Amino acid sequence: MYSADYLRNFTFRLFSKLGCPEDDASTIADILVAAERRGISSHGMIRIKNYYLMHEKGRINVRPEIQTIRETPSTAVVDGGGAYGMVAAKRSMQIAIEKARNAGTGWVTTKNSNHFGIAGYYSMMALEEDMIGIAMTNANPFVAPTFSKSRLLGTNPVAVAIPAGKYPPYVADFATTPIARGKLTIKGRQGESVEEGLVQDAEGRSSTDPDVIKEGGAILPLGSDRAHGSHKGYCLNSIVDIFSAVFSGANFGPFVPPQVPFLSPPDEQVGEGLGHFFGAMRIDAFQEKEEFKNRMDKWMETFRKAENIDGEPEVMIPGDPERAMEKKTEREGIELLNSVEKDLGELADKLCLDFEIKRS
Amino acid sequence: MYSADYLRNFTFRLFSKLGCPEDDASTIADILVAAERRGISSHGMIRIKNYYLMHEKGRINVRPEIQTIRETPSTAVVDGGGAYGMVAAKRSMQIAIEKARNAGTGWVTTKNSNHFGIAGYYSMMALEEDMIGIAMTNANPFVAPTFSKSRLLGTNPVAVAIPAGKYPPYVADFATTPIARGKLTIKGRQGESVEEGLVQDAEGRSSTDPDVIKEGGAILPLGSDRAHGSHKGYCLNSIVDIFSAVFSGANFGPFVPPQVPFLSPPDEQVGEGLGHFFGAMRIDAFQEKEEFKNRMDKWMETFRKAENIDGEPEVMIPGDPERAMEKKTEREGIELLNSVEKDLGELADKLCLDFEIKRS
Repeated sequence: MYSADYLRNFTFRLFSKLGCPEDDASTIADILVAAERRGISSHGMIRIKNYYLMHEKGRINVRPEIQTIRETPSTAVVDGGGAYGMVAAKRSMQIAIEKARNAGTGWVTTKNSNHFGIAGYYSMMALEEDMIGIAMTNANPFVAPTFSKSRLLGTNPVAVAIPAGKYPPYVADFATTPIARGKLTIKGRQGESVEEGLVQDAEGRSSTDPDVIKEGGAILPLGSDRAHGSHKGYCLNSIVDIFSAVFSGANFGPFVPPQVPFLSPPDEQVGEGLGHFFGAMRIDAFQEKEEFKNRMDKWMETFRKAENIDGEPEVMIPGDPERAMEKKTEREGIELLNSVEKDLGELADKLCLDFEIKRS
Repeated sequence: MYSADYLRNFTFRLFSKLGCPEDDASTIADILVAAERRGISSHGMIRIKNYYLMHEKGRINVRPEIQTIRETPSTAVVDGGGAYGMVAAKRSMQIAIEKARNAGTGWVTTKNSNHFGIAGYYSMMALEEDMIGIAMTNANPFVAPTFSKSRLLGTNPVAVAIPAGKYPPYVADFATTPIARGKLTIKGRQGESVEEGLVQDAEGRSSTDPDVIKEGGAILPLGSDRAHGSHKGYCLNSIVDIFSAVFSGANFGPFVPPQVPFLSPPDEQVGEGLGHFFGAMRIDAFQEKEEFKNRMDKWMETFRKAENIDGEPEVMIPGDPERAMEKKTEREGIELLNSVEKDLGELADKLCLDFEIKRS
């Protein structure tokens, strides 16, 4: 088990070695470790090796010029300068928050960026400002629209964070597919099958093999099939793609450049990098702050009182599972997969850093 | 078959008789007939009888004072004055559009309103202004959160309309549940069963009987069950509830007053009426107008080229099915259910209006 501090310090030093300015290395470390603390290890330390290799291949700019290239009182288009996604995304969300201070709300669409880690982090930046935060991103194409076998969309997550008063905030952070890509990979490695309604094979036939994704298969949109509303999941997923990439001038749909070093970007590019979309809304744009928070508290009390089905867990408020994991990892530490420890150990050797292997 | 004009004129006269100002009667008629034209008859003429009875019971204000009660450069909170939802919603969307002209985007949350018909109508108002339009609303509680048997949420639809260039616009308009309430009602009347994964009975057990909703059962969130991501559908659905009603000061969750005359509002009220949320974003806030539209055209061309699964229909762009229905109803006319014709005939007699019964 590792402490969050240990992993944060290691990650900070690693990205500093790659040439990132101190603030940027610190941002990347914070966000990767936040994923581990919140139990979303698919977006945590496991990503470092690929992030490193993407830099080595010259596909990441560690000294980016991140700039607003177009704006109105409540909006900005940000050029991420080819930065690590976390760096471009955090700056973009800060701009959304600054816009909201003056205009009531702020909306930022970002191009020329890369994989940004957990969407929830950026949405939660708004909470300290008594604002509602929204973050979304497009991603590599593994998702087929309803009726199709073509992989045209990413798992395109959406995060929304809303402050409450005496209770912890409402924080929804979800892929717009029934299952996230990272979870499928883990199932595949463990040789397990998955339920029907999550993936299809290359011909579009229902499959229970998570590895069909490696053989031209696709992840289904939220809703799974037409009878269960997959066309609605396709709508939601494609809205994220359009807001993130058509608005900003990034690559949309199947043109999103792969975020792994061993796959090259598609020959045709329709923009720069991948895209994100951020929003910030002042709660006092809608109600007096106290009143707003009281109303959210009442909303949460109402949902806490929901009667659960016999044998099922208690009803949750979005954000509960991640908060439970934060408590657990704070108490017990953060566990890494053997393969992740090994990768980080090798990277540490290469970069003359210390990394303590705990398990292998 | 009826022509759209015939139904619009009848509806206009009917709501005029009830005391609505000419503009408001015209708004209501436009939006109800738009639903029929777009093939969403569950939100069309079938609603008129209940709308009439709600007015007769004193639960609708036909001479509402609709006003902005709080604002920032990019936001407004609107008090709908207890109006018919279509009247409050259209005015609210106009305010969002006005805000966007100056601030780049406009966001309006509306309280003290009622059932507003099809969400798509309001989102599409933005298209003529070269803006992206967003509309959502909460609704009567028939939906249970994941793990629960308590009905705490509505089918809470979301609509997003995005202009394109040489192609028709992108228009997504979808309930955040696998199936809409209206479609279940129709299945029930026809004595048909439904697939698993749409509804559960009063104890939270999976059911194929659409009528379980009448006996304390619930509609499931988009995703159907935990394994297929219903917790994500619950997030999306509850975001719509919070944006529409916590923000505005309307009733949220289980407190939403029933939109039918034969059910009374719950004893506890946490706000006024039901709530909506609207957004408008200028496309030139993000790109030059031509460039934006070219990018949307390219997005659409990319998705039109998706390969469909053998035996399945062509992949659609959101908005396609409704546009196909508009062409069909323009050519062939609008068909009403016998029971709807009968209801409208009786209402016409009561209000000294003409209504031609075509079928019964």
